[in-house]
Amino acid sequence: MKYSFKNDYSELCHPALLEALLKASTEQNTGYGLDKHTENAKYLIKDKLESDNCDIHFVTGGTQANASVISHILRPYEAVLACSSGHINVYETGAIEATGHKVYTAAGIDGKLTTADIEAALAYHQDEHMVKIGMVYISQSTEIGTVYSFAELKALYELCKEKQLYLYIDGARLSSGLAASDVEFNQLKELCDVMYIGGTKIGMLSGEAIVIFNDQLKSYFRYHIKNKGAMLAKGYVLGIQFEAAFNDNLYFEMGQHENELAHFLSNELKELGIPLLSESPTNQIFPIFTKEQVEKLQKDYAFEIWEPVDDKIAIRFVTSWATTKEVCEELIEDIKVVIS
Amino acid sequence: MKYSFKNDYSELCHPALLEALLKASTEQNTGYGLDKHTENAKYLIKDKLESDNCDIHFVTGGTQANASVISHILRPYEAVLACSSGHINVYETGAIEATGHKVYTAAGIDGKLTTADIEAALAYHQDEHMVKIGMVYISQSTEIGTVYSFAELKALYELCKEKQLYLYIDGARLSSGLAASDVEFNQLKELCDVMYIGGTKIGMLSGEAIVIFNDQLKSYFRYHIKNKGAMLAKGYVLGIQFEAAFNDNLYFEMGQHENELAHFLSNELKELGIPLLSESPTNQIFPIFTKEQVEKLQKDYAFEIWEPVDDKIAIRFVTSWATTKEVCEELIEDIKVVIS
Amino acid sequence: MKYSFKNDYSELCHPALLEALLKASTEQNTGYGLDKHTENAKYLIKDKLESDNCDIHFVTGGTQANASVISHILRPYEAVLACSSGHINVYETGAIEATGHKVYTAAGIDGKLTTADIEAALAYHQDEHMVKIGMVYISQSTEIGTVYSFAELKALYELCKEKQLYLYIDGARLSSGLAASDVEFNQLKELCDVMYIGGTKIGMLSGEAIVIFNDQLKSYFRYHIKNKGAMLAKGYVLGIQFEAAFNDNLYFEMGQHENELAHFLSNELKELGIPLLSESPTNQIFPIFTKEQVEKLQKDYAFEIWEPVDDKIAIRFVTSWATTKEVCEELIEDIKVVIS
Amino acid sequence: MKYSFKNDYSELCHPALLEALLKASTEQNTGYGLDKHTENAKYLIKDKLESDNCDIHFVTGGTQANASVISHILRPYEAVLACSSGHINVYETGAIEATGHKVYTAAGIDGKLTTADIEAALAYHQDEHMVKIGMVYISQSTEIGTVYSFAELKALYELCKEKQLYLYIDGARLSSGLAASDVEFNQLKELCDVMYIGGTKIGMLSGEAIVIFNDQLKSYFRYHIKNKGAMLAKGYVLGIQFEAAFNDNLYFEMGQHENELAHFLSNELKELGIPLLSESPTNQIFPIFTKEQVEKLQKDYAFEIWEPVDDKIAIRFVTSWATTKEVCEELIEDIKVVIS
Repeated sequence: MKYSFKNDYSELCHPALLEALLKASTEQNTGYGLDKHTENAKYLIKDKLESDNCDIHFVTGGTQANASVISHILRPYEAVLACSSGHINVYETGAIEATGHKVYTAAGIDGKLTTADIEAALAYHQDEHMVKIGMVYISQSTEIGTVYSFAELKALYELCKEKQLYLYIDGARLSSGLAASDVEFNQLKELCDVMYIGGTKIGMLSGEAIVIFNDQLKSYFRYHIKNKGAMLAKGYVLGIQFEAAFNDNLYFEMGQHENELAHFLSNELKELGIPLLSESPTNQIFPIFTKEQVEKLQKDYAFEIWEPVDDKIAIRFVTSWATTKEVCEELIEDIKVVIS
Repeated sequence: MKYSFKNDYSELCHPALLEALLKASTEQNTGYGLDKHTENAKYLIKDKLESDNCDIHFVTGGTQANASVISHILRPYEAVLACSSGHINVYETGAIEATGHKVYTAAGIDGKLTTADIEAALAYHQDEHMVKIGMVYISQSTEIGTVYSFAELKALYELCKEKQLYLYIDGARLSSGLAASDVEFNQLKELCDVMYIGGTKIGMLSGEAIVIFNDQLKSYFRYHIKNKGAMLAKGYVLGIQFEAAFNDNLYFEMGQHENELAHFLSNELKELGIPLLSESPTNQIFPIFTKEQVEKLQKDYAFEIWEPVDDKIAIRFVTSWATTKEVCEELIEDIKVVIS
Repeated sequence: MKYSFKNDYSELCHPALLEALLKASTEQNTGYGLDKHTENAKYLIKDKLESDNCDIHFVTGGTQANASVISHILRPYEAVLACSSGHINVYETGAIEATGHKVYTAAGIDGKLTTADIEAALAYHQDEHMVKIGMVYISQSTEIGTVYSFAELKALYELCKEKQLYLYIDGARLSSGLAASDVEFNQLKELCDVMYIGGTKIGMLSGEAIVIFNDQLKSYFRYHIKNKGAMLAKGYVLGIQFEAAFNDNLYFEMGQHENELAHFLSNELKELGIPLLSESPTNQIFPIFTKEQVEKLQKDYAFEIWEPVDDKIAIRFVTSWATTKEVCEELIEDIKVVIS
Repeated sequence: MKYSFKNDYSELCHPALLEALLKASTEQNTGYGLDKHTENAKYLIKDKLESDNCDIHFVTGGTQANASVISHILRPYEAVLACSSGHINVYETGAIEATGHKVYTAAGIDGKLTTADIEAALAYHQDEHMVKIGMVYISQSTEIGTVYSFAELKALYELCKEKQLYLYIDGARLSSGLAASDVEFNQLKELCDVMYIGGTKIGMLSGEAIVIFNDQLKSYFRYHIKNKGAMLAKGYVLGIQFEAAFNDNLYFEMGQHENELAHFLSNELKELGIPLLSESPTNQIFPIFTKEQVEKLQKDYAFEIWEPVDDKIAIRFVTSWATTKEVCEELIEDIKVVIS
């Protein structure tokens, strides 16, 4: 097989991060995220956020981050509102419900929640016989590759504050999402109560940085992540990686890189007359091929079968921080052969 | 500071494992533990267990392993029996109770559960107004550094089978525990229903291998670890490390190494007339010093203050895979000065 | 106010049940449902079910019954499939999720799940990244007053058995549901794995009888209801009521009575030219009035405002075991005045 | 059999309460505790508490009350401190843990927690690797029949406030506990944050009144009891009973009555030279007989076998609101025969 476009976590780790780990391999460090690398990683992230007033915690995976944050925010009778395509609703095997909370869903538009969805959810839940909506969960970029604009995030957060709902952003693909939207990293502190900065899907071995902006949600969060099995003994493994990724602009450049290659692919595909399921500005694109073409492509490339479109099939190509221009060009050449 | 004897997870990763990671850094691998390294790691572990008939799953931490296994085994009204000093009872911030289950405790002897403890727990819980004891949790080595002998494990497991209880071994420090006991690694398959082979405390970045021997407990465990947030996207990070650790005898040698240095220290301390709180055969030792001596030692060394003993203080030294003979010798020399 | 048609639990208790309670008020009885009345109630229910081979447990409310049964059946990573209008999805304030399980919903038709809904749910959930559908929840009669036919129940249960799903029937309004459908009480043992026979909504102070037909689900259920806070100390309060309701045909007659009055009302309304939102065969009917008519009716009667229908309003009348023909006739007379 | 002294919930319901239910049996009442009887019951209880500033909620059982209150108060990583003999620790089949929380226990003295127990529990739990003690649970009277004095309760609550712990009193046997202690009902508002007034064990069909004094714990509690399956559709069944019990002094007189008979029995037993296991001031007493005597008594009386005392056996007699002086006198006469 020539290359897998299946996802953005097929490659171990960005070389710069691996080098940072190597460099620290002869040190002794304090456990449980109380080491100097973690401290410095927090400093660097806060610096780029231009915010002193936030708490940062590192965990190893997105489901851990989501379950820890959501069960930290909600009371037992409260639910989280999410898009029906939201990761917590579909792809976490009931991890949120396992903490006792309903995921109440709205259809959304293009994988994104709207203020109308929030209004409708609140209107529907009126008394103690139904769950109380306590928070809103969104993803940037979304599970289908779309992004919220600054104006959209601002409108959502203003409504949330008005309605006393907490807003939480799942940033599993935040790097790609930022590179594709008009939202700046340092604006996020005014656009949500909590978010996590995804590392696993953008060149780390594993690691997500939960950032708590809202003072009311800060207390005892270390207790909570330990309670959820999300506190790593060697927390510095995460700290070292985030330190290296935020020391310069590497974290942001990786997302730009993967978006650029995805744009290259979608432009080339359009040139070839291959239709796309949607206009995704991020690192996931969804070209539509015939069954025969898909089968031919599968001989050399791995990718997800997305969904049938009439008598054809939409597939998904994901570019990663490690994907090269060369491999994309080769893919286009091979597609030319396949469709000819 | 010269050296920290505070715990066995102060150093990043054994060089051989780091090298294995480096070597794989240019590969693409399938996600979620379905890659070739994980496959091979399982093969190597099974080979050393001399068992084809077990399921192996890798997770990143001990609390995750414990919460996933225990809530997989128990029904909602069931409890796990543990020693009151057991990790799940003291140091997991209620992670087991967070999955809905009581940790019922017995005092034990030297940090170890006895068959009498199990008999007493069963005799006490008689009807549906009390929890039903569904399983037994033990640690090898224990939280205070002691080990179960083969005869002790055999007696516990036979009683468990007779009483229809599942037996689970927390092997956070299994390498050290095996090196200090008469239990062979390949005997474990006949001594429990499930165990985990600890990696984090013996030279891995992070990683624990849950091994399910009992057929009745195997189904759908991958669903369960995903549900508990314990399934890593880049599962191969764990697979690569276990592959390297079990390719030869490295996993076992690291435990032998740390035990040897701990024995060296305890022997030297005895020579110097320093009393020890207990006879620990593993990598944790508990010498007793005066308050002044402790303060002097703290200038150059980090360690845990364990507990007061009359007007003196027991402290804890932990040796790790990375601790050297030299640093231990230097410690002894420094102790000589301190006590003179 | 003349009368409330708001629901079927506005009146305390059927006189025959109250008399049975009075009669037992000088007895001493064993606690926790181990008394002779409970024993006899079970015998009478089994006799009417023509089944010796089922376990019966009495609890005080429907949410307790649902939460106890569902969390007894499911493993932590499993979900229950329900109609989106299902009581567990809408009106239990997240009680099922509080036991750790997702309620996965399908739109259904007329408040009823179809075999196609089950097939689609199974097709959608393919691997360990999504919950596993472990059981199906339906209500007879449904939350909007419709009923499953014998053929429908049979098809659902056959599919469930084929797909290894458990089928559970919420019988909060089973008496009314049976009276309105072609399903006989003694056929239910072959149409589901577990059900509950609702008492609260059909003339008891409170009380629901959970009936477990499937042998695999019987063990330790008393532990489970105690664990869920659903075991009553004075269990005989429930036993006495079910004993009286099943001693003759009272349980079934109450449902027939309320259905008959509802039919009387809907027939009369049709005669008067008042449209009905749906053809409900049970004790809930949904006539459509103008806003002014509704306001006039509210002076003398209580009822639920259901939903707007164009510029009119559908309201809900519920008849109960205690509703009389006279009060229904009076209502019709008053409606004649209101619409004239 | 002549009489059962097994517990205080063997008899259905005090005649005055049954009469109140009968009287209301022709009424229509609003569901879910929003009826006029419940309203009046709350008014009467507040009047006797001399407190306008508390919230009252009625549920059907003690385990429901405990699970609802405790999971309402605690955050996910928090534990409740209880005496090891506490009902929540022993006799609720893990119902508290089922809501996700550890019950951390102290030995206590005579079934009662001391301020030293609280201090020790706080000293032991120091950081995020252990649960955080969030509240204290005590019972009045305790599970072994003892009572807290006013001074003891005051000291406990002052310490709790100082340490930011909530104090919760389980009043399953509050009526008996008040009658036996120097604590007045109207003082309770200054002695705890939440309590429940037990009804089931003092002459109600079922019913417990949760009283929330602390403003911080009041919000959304109706959502929470619905979420825990503890909200009764016919809430007025509970309201009517509490209304009748608090309309005059019936609630308190029932406890006095049962205590008086227990005192009568213990005095007579002492006269006969029968030793008692402890000096219980409430409705549970623990005489010690020989095995032969116990067997003879069992022919005519039911009671719990408590524990062996040397070669003899302590048994438990419980008096209830329904026990008569005559039956107690007859018991004493029969004991005279048995021991002669």
